Amino acid sequence: MKKLGILTGGGDAPGLNAVLRAAVKTAVRSYNCEVIGLKDGYDGFLAPGGIIPLGREEVRGILPRGGTILGTANRGNPFAREVLRDGEKVIIDTSNEVIEAIKKQNLDGLIVIGGDGTLNIALELYRKGVPIIGVPKTIDNDVGGTEVTFGFDTALETATEAIDKLHTTAESHHRVMVLELMGRDAGFIALHAGVAGGADVILIPEIPFRYKAILDKINRRVQSGRHFSILAVSEGAKSIEGEQIYSRAGNEIYVPRLGGIGQQVSDYIAKHSEQETRVTVLGHIQRGGSPTPYDRFLATRYGSAATRLAAQGKFGHMVSLQNGHVVDIPLAEALATPKRVNINGDAVRTARDLGICFGDEK
Amino acid sequence: MKKLGILTGGGDAPGLNAVLRAAVKTAVRSYNCEVIGLKDGYDGFLAPGGIIPLGREEVRGILPRGGTILGTANRGNPFAREVLRDGEKVIIDTSNEVIEAIKKQNLDGLIVIGGDGTLNIALELYRKGVPIIGVPKTIDNDVGGTEVTFGFDTALETATEAIDKLHTTAESHHRVMVLELMGRDAGFIALHAGVAGGADVILIPEIPFRYKAILDKINRRVQSGRHFSILAVSEGAKSIEGEQIYSRAGNEIYVPRLGGIGQQVSDYIAKHSEQETRVTVLGHIQRGGSPTPYDRFLATRYGSAATRLAAQGKFGHMVSLQNGHVVDIPLAEALATPKRVNINGDAVRTARDLGICFGDEK
Amino acid sequence: MKKLGILTGGGDAPGLNAVLRAAVKTAVRSYNCEVIGLKDGYDGFLAPGGIIPLGREEVRGILPRGGTILGTANRGNPFAREVLRDGEKVIIDTSNEVIEAIKKQNLDGLIVIGGDGTLNIALELYRKGVPIIGVPKTIDNDVGGTEVTFGFDTALETATEAIDKLHTTAESHHRVMVLELMGRDAGFIALHAGVAGGADVILIPEIPFRYKAILDKINRRVQSGRHFSILAVSEGAKSIEGEQIYSRAGNEIYVPRLGGIGQQVSDYIAKHSEQETRVTVLGHIQRGGSPTPYDRFLATRYGSAATRLAAQGKFGHMVSLQNGHVVDIPLAEALATPKRVNINGDAVRTARDLGICFGDEK
Amino acid sequence: MKKLGILTGGGDAPGLNAVLRAAVKTAVRSYNCEVIGLKDGYDGFLAPGGIIPLGREEVRGILPRGGTILGTANRGNPFAREVLRDGEKVIIDTSNEVIEAIKKQNLDGLIVIGGDGTLNIALELYRKGVPIIGVPKTIDNDVGGTEVTFGFDTALETATEAIDKLHTTAESHHRVMVLELMGRDAGFIALHAGVAGGADVILIPEIPFRYKAILDKINRRVQSGRHFSILAVSEGAKSIEGEQIYSRAGNEIYVPRLGGIGQQVSDYIAKHSEQETRVTVLGHIQRGGSPTPYDRFLATRYGSAATRLAAQGKFGHMVSLQNGHVVDIPLAEALATPKRVNINGDAVRTARDLGICFGDEK
Repeated sequence: MKKLGILTGGGDAPGLNAVLRAAVKTAVRSYNCEVIGLKDGYDGFLAPGGIIPLGREEVRGILPRGGTILGTANRGNPFAREVLRDGEKVIIDTSNEVIEAIKKQNLDGLIVIGGDGTLNIALELYRKGVPIIGVPKTIDNDVGGTEVTFGFDTALETATEAIDKLHTTAESHHRVMVLELMGRDAGFIALHAGVAGGADVILIPEIPFRYKAILDKINRRVQSGRHFSILAVSEGAKSIEGEQIYSRAGNEIYVPRLGGIGQQVSDYIAKHSEQETRVTVLGHIQRGGSPTPYDRFLATRYGSAATRLAAQGKFGHMVSLQNGHVVDIPLAEALATPKRVNINGDAVRTARDLGICFGDEK
Repeated sequence: MKKLGILTGGGDAPGLNAVLRAAVKTAVRSYNCEVIGLKDGYDGFLAPGGIIPLGREEVRGILPRGGTILGTANRGNPFAREVLRDGEKVIIDTSNEVIEAIKKQNLDGLIVIGGDGTLNIALELYRKGVPIIGVPKTIDNDVGGTEVTFGFDTALETATEAIDKLHTTAESHHRVMVLELMGRDAGFIALHAGVAGGADVILIPEIPFRYKAILDKINRRVQSGRHFSILAVSEGAKSIEGEQIYSRAGNEIYVPRLGGIGQQVSDYIAKHSEQETRVTVLGHIQRGGSPTPYDRFLATRYGSAATRLAAQGKFGHMVSLQNGHVVDIPLAEALATPKRVNINGDAVRTARDLGICFGDEK
Repeated sequence: MKKLGILTGGGDAPGLNAVLRAAVKTAVRSYNCEVIGLKDGYDGFLAPGGIIPLGREEVRGILPRGGTILGTANRGNPFAREVLRDGEKVIIDTSNEVIEAIKKQNLDGLIVIGGDGTLNIALELYRKGVPIIGVPKTIDNDVGGTEVTFGFDTALETATEAIDKLHTTAESHHRVMVLELMGRDAGFIALHAGVAGGADVILIPEIPFRYKAILDKINRRVQSGRHFSILAVSEGAKSIEGEQIYSRAGNEIYVPRLGGIGQQVSDYIAKHSEQETRVTVLGHIQRGGSPTPYDRFLATRYGSAATRLAAQGKFGHMVSLQNGHVVDIPLAEALATPKRVNINGDAVRTARDLGICFGDEK
Repeated sequence: MKKLGILTGGGDAPGLNAVLRAAVKTAVRSYNCEVIGLKDGYDGFLAPGGIIPLGREEVRGILPRGGTILGTANRGNPFAREVLRDGEKVIIDTSNEVIEAIKKQNLDGLIVIGGDGTLNIALELYRKGVPIIGVPKTIDNDVGGTEVTFGFDTALETATEAIDKLHTTAESHHRVMVLELMGRDAGFIALHAGVAGGADVILIPEIPFRYKAILDKINRRVQSGRHFSILAVSEGAKSIEGEQIYSRAGNEIYVPRLGGIGQQVSDYIAKHSEQETRVTVLGHIQRGGSPTPYDRFLATRYGSAATRLAAQGKFGHMVSLQNGHVVDIPLAEALATPKRVNINGDAVRTARDLGICFGDEK
C-alpha cells in the first residue's frame, strides 16, 4: 500500500479530526504509506487545490478539535451535482469525471467518512471500481450496521447539558420548556438526552404522537403539584393527527414554514392549558465542540482500523462497532437498513416505566 | 435583629441559591436570627403557603444549583398587579395589601434579590417604610451601581461555549453563523462572549449598526480566504436604518414578529451575498446551569453582606462590587442610571483593534 | 411483588443515584411496590436507623448527582466483619445475623449495586436464600459479564480532561508529565484516557513494562524535536523487572511505601535523562462529579431493569449491557472471570499503530 | 512603531496565548507594526532559533488554547543564569549579553508577560534602557498593582470542580477529604474555591493555623451529624506551632520532604480522630486547560492594551485591571507590594460568617 486518499462528507461531527489523525498516523507509521486529503468531500478531486498532502505534521494537535480540517460539503454528490447552466440550476452526473480523477491519483484505497448520504455515494463508486473503505459518522446515530457512530456521544452531552440548564428555569418559573433537538429520522438524541436529563415528555420520529396525550401528561403533573415540565422533541417527531390540529395561539393565519415541531407543540400547550411555555431550538450547537473521550476513543479506533482494512484490501467494507469491538461489515449490508430507535427495546421500556410520556399513551 | 425575610424576583439567574444560602447561614450563625422565605417574589406575602421557614437545613446543598428554591415571578408587581375581573385583565395597585402583610410578619429586614424591575419595586416599598436591603441580580449585567452582577459570568460561559461550538461548523462548512444572545438593553453578553469566542462581528444595543457594514466585513473576509464568519448579536441590537431595509430572502411577505434580530441579519446576508447562513437563538439556556465559581463566590459574598447590612439597619441600600470589594450604596443612586457598555472604554477599543466589526464602521 | 430492598456497596461511582431513582420509580409506578433503602451497604440491616423508606419524593432530583444518597461502606462484609473485642480488632462472620434481619423485612427482592467485592457477597447471600438482584458498578470497568459498567465513562472524562490540561504545561515547559490514574487490576481508564488524550506512553496492569522501553520512547521523541511527553499510568501497572531497578534520584534511602508507580516512573526518567518530570496522582476526583449522559442513561436502564428482574423472580442474576441492550446473566457466571483489557484487541492494536508505547517494546 | 518583541516567562497560565494573539493583531492591524516572538522567555534572545516572526497567521486559532506557543522557562534569569562550567553548576550574570541582543533587534518595545519573578527582571532591564511593557500573569493572583491577573479564574474553576467532585465521595463514604491547592504565598485559590465549593475548612498562608482548631471543627461537625468534611489547603499554608507537632500516623521516622502540608494535616486528623481521611494534591492540572471566558476576555484586553502602551512609549509600565477598566501603572509601583488575601476584607469575613474554619479560631 503506497498511497491512500481520505475525505469527509455531510454535516460535520465531533471526532472527524480524530479519525483523520488516526488513519494518517497508522498509514505513515505502520505501512510507510503516503496519504492525501480531499478538501470539501468528493469536490476535492475536481476543484483546483482540492488535494493536499496529509502527513504527521498536518494531523498534529487535531485530536481534541471539533469539525474537520478537510472541510466538508453538503451538496457534493458526484452523481447529482447542482451546477449553474445559462443562469439556471441543473443537476448533472459528474461521477465519471470524479472516477477519472481518482484513477489519476493512483490510490490504493479511498477512505470515506460520512453518514448515510456520503456512504451511499461511496458504495456506488465502489461498484464502479473505486477501492472504497467506509467510516460511519452521524450526530443522529442513524447509520445501520454499527452499534454506535462517533459524534453521537458529544451531541448527547450538549443536548443533556441544555436540558439540565432548562430545568432550573422551568422549576423557578413554573414553566413548560420545550427543547427541539436534532434527529430527522431517528430519535436517539432526544431519547437518550431526555432520559439522562430527566425529561417528562420525549417525542421521537419512531413514535407518532397525539397532542392530547402530551397535554394530559402536563396536566397530571400540575395536579400532583409539579407546575413545570420538560419536553425533549426530535426535529423529526410527527403527530398522528397531522398538522392541522394546532394553530398559533391567538394568531389567525397559521404560518407552518416558520416554526418547527417544537414551536408547534409549544403553541398547542399554550393554547390549551394555563401553562406558560418556552421553546429552545438547540440547532447547530449539537454538531460542535471538542469530542467527548468516548467519541475520541471510538473515532481513533475507526480511523486506524480503516487504514488497516485498506491494507488488507477489504474494499467496499465499513468499520463498525459490535459489542465493544471494532470490526468491519460490507457497506451494502450496513446501508440496507438505516438504524432507528427500537420502540420495543429496554431503553424505551425503561423510559415508560419511569413515567416518561411518548405521546402515544391512551 | 430577630427576623429577616428574603425573596427572589424577575428572571432566574445562576447564583440565586448561593445568595439565599449565605444570607440564611449568616443570619442564623452570626446573629441567631430567624429567616423566612417568600415564594414567587412579592406574591409570597399574599398567597396561601407563600411564606416558608428558611433554616440551615433548607439551604443545605443548594450552593452549586441553578435557579431559586423560592421560585420567582415575572409579573408580581404589587404596584401593578394583573388580575382577572369579570373575565378581563385589569391592572390594580395591591401595594398596601403587601405592606400590611409585611408588617404582620414583624420583619427586621427584607432582603430583595432581583434586577432593575424588582429593585425599583423594592425602592418604592422602602419609601413606604419597608426595611429593604437590595441584592442586584441580572444575566445581562445591566444593573447600575455595581461593577458586576452575579449570574453574568455563568451566562457568559454558556454563550462563549456556544460560539466555540459554532466555530467548527462554520469553518468546516464555510458558513456564516449568527448567534443571538440575551441583552435587550445592554450588550455585555454579546461583547464579552464575542471577544472571548473570537467572533468577527458583534452587534449590541449601544451601537446601532448598518447592514451594509456587516456585509462588507464578511466580504472582506471571503476575499482574504476566510470563507466563514461568526456573528454574536444581542437580542436588543438595532439597525440605524430601521426594519424596512431587509426582507426574508425569496419571501414576498415580510413577517417581522416571527424572527428576532439574529434572523433578520442572517436573512440580509443570505440575500445579499453568496454565503450560506445559519441562525441559533440561544435563549433560556443562558439563564440555567450550575453557577461558575466566580458567580458562587460573588453571590455568597452578596448574600452574607446583605444580612450584615440588615443587622446594621442600612435599609434602602444595595450590596455592590467596587474594585473587588463588596460594599453598599443607596438603591436610589444605583437605580438612577442603568449600566450600559461603555462604547469608548478599553473593551470596545480592544475589539476594534482586533478587527471585530460593530456595524458602525464607514 | 410488595417490598423491595436496595443498597449500594464499595467505592462510590457516578450513577449510583440514577440507579436508585430508576429502580424506585419503576417499582412504585409499574408494580405499586414499596421500596426500602439500606444505609451504608449491608450494615444498614443491622445498624439502628439503617433502614429508610425510598419513595418518589426521596429520589426526586438525584439523577444528575454523584455519590449515593444511601451512603456506602468499604468494610461492611457480613461474612467477615471487623469488630473491636477487648480492644482488639477481630474478624467475625455476621452473615446469619444479616440474613435474619433480611428475612424480618419480608423482602420480595434485594437489589445490590456494587463492584466485584459487593457482588461476590451478594452471590453468597443468594446461595443462602436471599432473593438477590445484582447491578454492576465500577469506576475501573473490571466487572465481568457486561460490556461496560456505569461510572466508567465519567471517570474517563475526568481523566481525559486532566491529560488535556497537562498537555499545555508539558508543551510550554518541555516536561515529562506523569499522570497516575485509577485501575488496580484493569487498565481501562489509562488506556481509554491515554488514547483519547493523546498520551505518548500508557502503562497498564495487563502489560508488564520495562523502564528502559519508556526511556527509549521519550528519547526518540526528544531526538525528533518533541521535548515533552505525557504518560498515563494505571496505579496497578507493574514493571517486569520488579521494584529494585529504580531509586529515588539523589536519595540514598529508598522509601517505597510513600510513592506510587507514577512517582517511581517519574523518578527513573529524572535520573536517567535530561528531562524535567512532574507527577500528578488524580486520586479520588475520578470517583466524583455529576455522571455523564452516557452513565446516567446506562445507570437508569440498569436500575429499572433490576426492578423488572425482581418482579420476574430472576434472583441470583445481574443486569448487564450486551451489544447495546440491557439483558441479564447469572451472577455466578459474571463473577467467574473479572474483566481485563484485551491486549490483543483492536484498541491496544490501534494504540500501537499510533506509536503509543506500552513499555513492552523491544 | 515598527518592531515589537514579546515573550512569556515563568509558569504557564491559561490566557497566555490570548495575550499574544491580541498584542500581535493590534500591532499589525492598528499600527502596521512587525512583531517577533522570543522562545522560552529571555532565553530566546540568545538561543539559536530563539526568535520567530509572529504575524496574523501564527496567532490564528490560539485564543482558546492553554499554555503558550512561545514556550516558557522557569530558570531563564539573565541576571543569574545557571550554567555548567567544568562540570559544575555556577550562576553568572548574562544581562549585558541579553541587552546587547535586544539592541541588535532594534525593538521599539518589548512586551514581557509574566509573574513577580519575570516582571522584576523586566524592571531591571527597563532600568538598563530596555523599552519594557509588562503584562501581569499568575495562577495565584499574587501580583500587586492589579485587581486580578488572567489565569486565576481558570485555576479557580479547576479547583472548585475538584471540590465539587470530592464532595460526593466525602458524603457517601463519611470521610475527611483534604485538597491541596496552589498558592505558595497567597491563598486566593484556596479561599475562592473553598467558598465556591462549600469547604468546611480553608487554610491559607496569610492566616497561620493551629492543628487543634481544625480538629475541633471536624469534631463539632461529627457531633451535629455531619460525618464528612472538606478541607481546601493552600500549599503555602503554615501552622503556628511549626512542623514538630504532628507525626505520620504509626510511623516512627518522620520524612517531611515527602509530604506537603495537605498530607500533614490529613495525618494529624487521622491520628487524633476516628475519621478516615484522604488527600488529593491537585498540582499542575491547575495551570492547564482552555482559559475561561473571563480569562480570555481579560487576557485579550491586556494584550491589546500592552501594544497600545508601547505605541504611546509608556515604557516601564504594566497593564492592570482597576474597577473593571484596563489601565496602566509603573512596574516599580506594582511590584513594590505583592498581593495577598486581605484577612480583614469582606471575603474572609463572609467565610467566617458561614462557619468556615481558618484554623485560627480559639
